Amino acid sequence: MSVRDEILEQPAATARLLNEGGPAIEAVGRAVRQRAVEHVVIAARGTSDHAAIYAQYLFGVALRIPVALAAPSIVSLYGVEPRFARSLVIGISQSGASPDVVGVVEAAHRQGVPTIAITNEPSSPLAVAAEHVIDVRAGPELAVAATKTYTAELVAIARLVEAIRGTGEERALREVPAAIEAALAAEDVARAVAVAHAGMRTATVLGRGFEYATVREWALKLKELARVVADPYSAADFRHGPLALVEPGFPVLAVAPSGAVAADLIALLREIRGEYRGDLVVLSDRPEIRDLGQWAIPLPGGVPDHLGPIVSIVPAQLFAYHLTIARGLDPDAPRHISKVTRTR
Amino acid sequence: MSVRDEILEQPAATARLLNEGGPAIEAVGRAVRQRAVEHVVIAARGTSDHAAIYAQYLFGVALRIPVALAAPSIVSLYGVEPRFARSLVIGISQSGASPDVVGVVEAAHRQGVPTIAITNEPSSPLAVAAEHVIDVRAGPELAVAATKTYTAELVAIARLVEAIRGTGEERALREVPAAIEAALAAEDVARAVAVAHAGMRTATVLGRGFEYATVREWALKLKELARVVADPYSAADFRHGPLALVEPGFPVLAVAPSGAVAADLIALLREIRGEYRGDLVVLSDRPEIRDLGQWAIPLPGGVPDHLGPIVSIVPAQLFAYHLTIARGLDPDAPRHISKVTRTR
Repeated sequence: MSVRDEILEQPAATARLLNEGGPAIEAVGRAVRQRAVEHVVIAARGTSDHAAIYAQYLFGVALRIPVALAAPSIVSLYGVEPRFARSLVIGISQSGASPDVVGVVEAAHRQGVPTIAITNEPSSPLAVAAEHVIDVRAGPELAVAATKTYTAELVAIARLVEAIRGTGEERALREVPAAIEAALAAEDVARAVAVAHAGMRTATVLGRGFEYATVREWALKLKELARVVADPYSAADFRHGPLALVEPGFPVLAVAPSGAVAADLIALLREIRGEYRGDLVVLSDRPEIRDLGQWAIPLPGGVPDHLGPIVSIVPAQLFAYHLTIARGLDPDAPRHISKVTRTR
Repeated sequence: MSVRDEILEQPAATARLLNEGGPAIEAVGRAVRQRAVEHVVIAARGTSDHAAIYAQYLFGVALRIPVALAAPSIVSLYGVEPRFARSLVIGISQSGASPDVVGVVEAAHRQGVPTIAITNEPSSPLAVAAEHVIDVRAGPELAVAATKTYTAELVAIARLVEAIRGTGEERALREVPAAIEAALAAEDVARAVAVAHAGMRTATVLGRGFEYATVREWALKLKELARVVADPYSAADFRHGPLALVEPGFPVLAVAPSGAVAADLIALLREIRGEYRGDLVVLSDRPEIRDLGQWAIPLPGGVPDHLGPIVSIVPAQLFAYHLTIARGLDPDAPRHISKVTRTR
């Protein structure tokens, strides 16, 4: 199994989770609804931390609940246990093995607040520590760079939020595996754009709102696989300083699908391309947004804002994969890092 | 007034805030103690968002309260108002003019939860929107790159947390202006290290715990002033992928003072220097930690962990400033960006 195989497995993995895992997630949602949850605290590291960012937006927009992304070192290094009060505490980790993430969930469980482990290893320490476990059922992930466990974590979060709302399963979520399949059809384009950028050493990755999770995850894949110093930014924060980096030819990768944030992003991309002459790669379902870039990678249309990140990361993964190959590196053997990272 | 003048003003600005602003902050803390605060939500952008990260750790460690960093676009772009329930909501902005940050505080105020504006403009829209205002009294900040308003925001947060605890003013905080003065004495070293790195185009900036705020802010100064693609990382998250970037000569800037996180960071820095041959610049009060780097910039000793970021950013600002000059750029005229950024 190579990382590319795992990228291509994502339609099947997400469909399996929705089909086989749906009832269990529904039950977790029902249990959480019984409790007086006013806030959510999420502990995660690396790729799973980007799933946590997605959850931050989704709990905020769909359930109006503020989400704190835990700083696990408050517990693990400073030895202080936050009072979780009326919080739901969620740990997200594909391996379920990171002691600092487990530590936050253990502390919350001791305090008697509801806890959920979202993991690909349902008998891991994280799963053991939590009251509820959501097995993301992605199958063994052997590549060091996480891909299918990321999209599976996002689907688990989307399904969980539906279950907590108690509105039943949305049709749009049901259609996500097919949308991922459609997104995979962009592989040839993603490869061509990647080959044209084989010399790229640095980049900024831009998006906003729900897609902030995507830009963080895309930048991480670019770093760990292709060794590009890729700096992810919310389009809003980008104007507060980092815009100074853009000069003629500076690579800017933008995740800019239709939806609530499109207008804001279009204005910024026009400025980057028109005034500052950045080298712009645009990921979008809308042809007129793609036309803003010198380069573009298509996304399938019809995916609502709040499910967009589950689909838009897929061509981004393919771009990172093919850029790695184009640079003469091995995407299945990123240097210095291991699959399971046990940070304290 | 140049940005360097404003960097040098920081001992005076922070002393003024503690002397003149102390009673007002004490009163805000007293008022907040009357309310049933179980969570904190903070809205901020750019440099002030790094002050929010500091607050996340300080409220967590000193008050055991989980802190959510608001995603302002949930309100401003998706039009959804979170239920703030038993939260304290804080907006941080030097100008107090960013509509998305104001929007979060307005929504919270409407819901009747306690709100605080931390700003250098006590008659700004943010100050008007909030129930309580903490004027950070940094004096006019004319440089585009924020420096003295950042350290003043950190001091305001540290003083506020003391006031909420109700333990009176700590001697250690009182001594911070003198520690900043001592940190400024490293200017010649910071300049020499910067000059030696004039050719640097990319860098990773590493730290952990409280100093995560410092690495985020240092990286932002490097981007907006010196146009270095500087990627900030928690030492814990760094092992989850970005470590793959480090190769012989790759610049790594580390904020590694004494304290709870030192051991963890020392292990990582040894690996970066010894195994991967990165080009390591270390900021530390401890000579044996500084010795891990090819390059080192001293920090004054005796500053406790939770106040460290107010002091450690100062030589980092000086490094960014002198690197900008060494690269032939004008630190008082960063391109493309303006002092007040009105993001929606």
